[in-house]
Amino acid sequence: MRVGIVGVTGYTGSELLRLLIAHGGVNLAYVTSRSYQGRPLAHVHPQYLQITELQCSKFSLEEAVEKTDLIFSALPHGESMETVPMLSKAGLKVIDLSADFRIEEEENYKQWYGKEHTAADYLGKAVYGLPELYRGKIKNACLVANPGCYPTSVILALAPLAQMNLVQWDTLVVDSKSGTSGAGRVPSQVLHYPECTENFRAYRVARHQHTPEMEQELGRLAGREVTFTFVPHLVPMVRGILSTIYVTLTAKWQEEEIRALYQRFYQTEKYVRIFPPEFLPETKYVYGSNYCDLYLKLDSRTGRLIIISVLDNLVKGAAGQALQNMNIMLDFPEDKGLEAVPLRP
Amino acid sequence: MRVGIVGVTGYTGSELLRLLIAHGGVNLAYVTSRSYQGRPLAHVHPQYLQITELQCSKFSLEEAVEKTDLIFSALPHGESMETVPMLSKAGLKVIDLSADFRIEEEENYKQWYGKEHTAADYLGKAVYGLPELYRGKIKNACLVANPGCYPTSVILALAPLAQMNLVQWDTLVVDSKSGTSGAGRVPSQVLHYPECTENFRAYRVARHQHTPEMEQELGRLAGREVTFTFVPHLVPMVRGILSTIYVTLTAKWQEEEIRALYQRFYQTEKYVRIFPPEFLPETKYVYGSNYCDLYLKLDSRTGRLIIISVLDNLVKGAAGQALQNMNIMLDFPEDKGLEAVPLRP
Amino acid sequence: MRVGIVGVTGYTGSELLRLLIAHGGVNLAYVTSRSYQGRPLAHVHPQYLQITELQCSKFSLEEAVEKTDLIFSALPHGESMETVPMLSKAGLKVIDLSADFRIEEEENYKQWYGKEHTAADYLGKAVYGLPELYRGKIKNACLVANPGCYPTSVILALAPLAQMNLVQWDTLVVDSKSGTSGAGRVPSQVLHYPECTENFRAYRVARHQHTPEMEQELGRLAGREVTFTFVPHLVPMVRGILSTIYVTLTAKWQEEEIRALYQRFYQTEKYVRIFPPEFLPETKYVYGSNYCDLYLKLDSRTGRLIIISVLDNLVKGAAGQALQNMNIMLDFPEDKGLEAVPLRP
Amino acid sequence: MRVGIVGVTGYTGSELLRLLIAHGGVNLAYVTSRSYQGRPLAHVHPQYLQITELQCSKFSLEEAVEKTDLIFSALPHGESMETVPMLSKAGLKVIDLSADFRIEEEENYKQWYGKEHTAADYLGKAVYGLPELYRGKIKNACLVANPGCYPTSVILALAPLAQMNLVQWDTLVVDSKSGTSGAGRVPSQVLHYPECTENFRAYRVARHQHTPEMEQELGRLAGREVTFTFVPHLVPMVRGILSTIYVTLTAKWQEEEIRALYQRFYQTEKYVRIFPPEFLPETKYVYGSNYCDLYLKLDSRTGRLIIISVLDNLVKGAAGQALQNMNIMLDFPEDKGLEAVPLRP
Repeated sequence: MRVGIVGVTGYTGSELLRLLIAHGGVNLAYVTSRSYQGRPLAHVHPQYLQITELQCSKFSLEEAVEKTDLIFSALPHGESMETVPMLSKAGLKVIDLSADFRIEEEENYKQWYGKEHTAADYLGKAVYGLPELYRGKIKNACLVANPGCYPTSVILALAPLAQMNLVQWDTLVVDSKSGTSGAGRVPSQVLHYPECTENFRAYRVARHQHTPEMEQELGRLAGREVTFTFVPHLVPMVRGILSTIYVTLTAKWQEEEIRALYQRFYQTEKYVRIFPPEFLPETKYVYGSNYCDLYLKLDSRTGRLIIISVLDNLVKGAAGQALQNMNIMLDFPEDKGLEAVPLRP
Repeated sequence: MRVGIVGVTGYTGSELLRLLIAHGGVNLAYVTSRSYQGRPLAHVHPQYLQITELQCSKFSLEEAVEKTDLIFSALPHGESMETVPMLSKAGLKVIDLSADFRIEEEENYKQWYGKEHTAADYLGKAVYGLPELYRGKIKNACLVANPGCYPTSVILALAPLAQMNLVQWDTLVVDSKSGTSGAGRVPSQVLHYPECTENFRAYRVARHQHTPEMEQELGRLAGREVTFTFVPHLVPMVRGILSTIYVTLTAKWQEEEIRALYQRFYQTEKYVRIFPPEFLPETKYVYGSNYCDLYLKLDSRTGRLIIISVLDNLVKGAAGQALQNMNIMLDFPEDKGLEAVPLRP
Repeated sequence: MRVGIVGVTGYTGSELLRLLIAHGGVNLAYVTSRSYQGRPLAHVHPQYLQITELQCSKFSLEEAVEKTDLIFSALPHGESMETVPMLSKAGLKVIDLSADFRIEEEENYKQWYGKEHTAADYLGKAVYGLPELYRGKIKNACLVANPGCYPTSVILALAPLAQMNLVQWDTLVVDSKSGTSGAGRVPSQVLHYPECTENFRAYRVARHQHTPEMEQELGRLAGREVTFTFVPHLVPMVRGILSTIYVTLTAKWQEEEIRALYQRFYQTEKYVRIFPPEFLPETKYVYGSNYCDLYLKLDSRTGRLIIISVLDNLVKGAAGQALQNMNIMLDFPEDKGLEAVPLRP
Repeated sequence: MRVGIVGVTGYTGSELLRLLIAHGGVNLAYVTSRSYQGRPLAHVHPQYLQITELQCSKFSLEEAVEKTDLIFSALPHGESMETVPMLSKAGLKVIDLSADFRIEEEENYKQWYGKEHTAADYLGKAVYGLPELYRGKIKNACLVANPGCYPTSVILALAPLAQMNLVQWDTLVVDSKSGTSGAGRVPSQVLHYPECTENFRAYRVARHQHTPEMEQELGRLAGREVTFTFVPHLVPMVRGILSTIYVTLTAKWQEEEIRALYQRFYQTEKYVRIFPPEFLPETKYVYGSNYCDLYLKLDSRTGRLIIISVLDNLVKGAAGQALQNMNIMLDFPEDKGLEAVPLRP
């Protein structure tokens, strides 16, 4: 199988490349970049010197069709919706890492992303690429909308409860903390090293664009509309998301019963680890790997359930999950190319 | 006036020293350390080379009484309750930076700190040293219990609402994030650089010992018992606490009305800054300074109020607040020695 | 006395502001910014909220002359040489923090800074603002060229040896390491947090523009032309420079004799600390302060002298030294506004 | 083949484990730990939860012999010399990651490591495990002394010159900078997060114990005794070493000629990358990988050659090189288990 990456020089593109090189089962035949067209990839990211001879091409539909069978689109949102429909129409399988095909309601997209969707007819055609929930659909999908980093951490953390109708949705508070690579490769004042290190801040308080994606997917699982408060924060580190989720249950369950529910729900899932009560997850425990680690604590004083969910935003939160989806679509073992043990320390 | 520091070599002791050197109005006449007795302070913390000639003494009650009028105790909790009563009985004014005299209920102390209180008769004698709320009492206090770092950030954030009975207490969730200096100067695996940097974690989930202190003080303001969920997290940075506080109000207020309430409540307070809606607080904005910055956001989708509270845990969260208390007790201008502008970048 | 800052929103401008607010003896009457003209300074740097009401003006010669007696120019090099001569001609005292008036030879400037000098007639008029060496000249100067950060660390480290002709100049190697704030406030790929943290690199190897400044000043002290190798490196931290300097002496001195020479040379200098052999300097020991710490080690195996020199690049390496120069020029105590103890941890 | 790790819970042991899990060709049958005996490895390092079921055994010679064919010793120096001879006598192949068998001269060991060598008869039997230089000997070795992290970076950087007699040895200065994981897993004041972050320091100036190892190996290549100055520094990051090496050549070579020499010398070596002049190496370019990147710059002003050498201290500087040695000894492809692309960002 021949695969390609459109938008290879950003962080998700580069991470895909890292994983695809280790994969071994596919031929990475085509990578594109608007900013670096014609240049060797190793000149953009010198860690690849003597590792890959790939050159960044300018995107061309003809070349994509000719050279590949499956394309990863790692373009920013807003750009992906211009390119992905062309690729899909031309018969290529597409895994889109942007947000452009995750939101089903056109209105919702416009409201949260601040622009009109120019390929609204494709909104319903994409499969939401969360393998633990939609493996069957992904297998036969032509277009996979790869989930966002925050949504992956939150949906996996709440899915077992949502399916059992155990969540009092109006009590739900999601407080997430992310490393800086989620903000991408373009320099900015906020991510300027002297201002970002030794600093901690919230951002887009109660108005982050991943909110409707989470509400849509959790609502689907719950079989009803759900609305909740989501506040993301920026941690002075490169990789990792930790979401702390506060929820009141609709029924009196013991902590051990809840943990058992999660263990059953995820018992065949390699990449979701239910932590025992004596170990709290840390972002370093998943560094560079495809795991999502979950921790459950019932606060007996308030009756509130606290869920902690941890993943590497560039792997399970982006490129790793995309590769997992590719493996499903192309009938590879689901963990192929994703065997790397977390890098720690 | 002559002052002393018992336990000068830990981080709060050392930070007190930093501020007292800049203060200029008192004579720092006596500093003690168990681990470093007999050694120049500059040999323990070489940043003080050629700045102070102070030697670490072994603690002696006689010497303390003879040399000082006011003592800061920067001993760890559990040790402070052995020493502070002696100092107080001997007629010295005492500002205690440990938790030992913050909790009024002996049972509460035992439950959360895991040990018997050996000076329970002093529990009721201490004034809780939060100047913005208890300035009058502090002025005449013999023993001030200097508030904890998390409690300062949370109580200042909620005081205006608590006094107005605007909080539905059972909805309250406090998600705090702290730099590492709050954990003190003793090396540990968790704070070992290779494991702590590039890492983010929660700890003492729903069982942190600052919980009863917050509940006690907020309960006092609210005139009722309150119980809520508190989850602290460790940020890979040295200084700074950011608390994100989620609360449903008991009445329909507009965001602007709430902000106006806060501005009135704190209008004469130099060290509480109510941020305008267009600026989110960051921990670097208070680095090395005595400010506590507050931000208010009403999430119109859920009706929930989100409060963000930021301070430097070693200054407003410990040594700076202690100096503020000293200034009140000794009739200095309240900001003397606390004029430093935040250090940024 | 009324002072102003031209270019207040960069890091050296902002650091000057921080120090001038603490100074108390001058009236900061005028600050300018091209990018933020008309905006409150606290909107550019929110740490100043409720601390200063200053507004960023557009630069105007008339206003500068009318409102101030002394101006700090914190413009980038290349821009300072356009503005400073105007200010100077108009009779204002000027302290220029750029490199534009540090290099005496016009040719040298052109070669290392890659552009023609447009105010070459002023090159000879500026006094090199290193108080420990040129205090007398600074006192009467109209125009002070404030030294670079690397040069301050290296010249102070070598001055005692240079004056005694103890250096075999062709053996000299200077290996410097700097925090990131030295690179300024404009975002760039190199300082983008995800690429800069957990990373270490050399840059401008043997071609950094501070080289001729060091060679000029050391040559002046030595009474001969000197040429050496200088390699700077970027450390993932905000503040601090550590220079490791390797030199073979022209005579056989014992380590203790060399240390005694340094102690005599700097015995009345508050801001140069000669460390005892049992303590190695660290950049945190000078954090936020005006100290330059020196350590001397004679490697008995090779006969080579190793000098370690440490300072805070924004203070003694820029704004602090500028304030020290101002104090000298305006007859304030030299340490006024510079009393702050290093911030650690 | 069955392999074991003695001392698995330290950073080099844990890194070996990470790489061996990815290797696939050997059976990791036995791991020991004194501090954690009887406990699952995943309880010591929770990143391994659900990845390995290995338990930490107490070391026993019988068990080691029975269960393994090759042992990695990741014990600290001083302990390795007690254990390794037993293993070797019992017929196991041993790769020792400590310094205990790297130094050939007993006196040298005593002088630099401060203790008597208790297995001096083994000093001559070990092969120095630098594959690029001693591949043939390693292939047939019973005992491999795996090189130190600093020595690997320095010897690879100088080997081509040393063999050609191009180095004026008395001019050589080696200024190295290392991340913190090289100091190991035991907490200490120096590596306590609040004191180590935002800080830079030199340590063991001209007296680091890796000095004699470098001098011995470079002396062997040069065919003469060599002595030079080595100063290591601590960088606030986890992984990575960058050595800046200053040398005057014995002959006039052009930079391009030197680069060509290096390219020839290392042309068949996968893990030594000679960087083109337009790219400076950074430690992140080798993060988590087995590469050693070299950069060459002739300073035309001084005639001095500057070499920059970069590697990941835990991989090419320790566990990766050990695995490379194992592959050679066991006839695996030399890069097996070492294919991982550097992790960046």
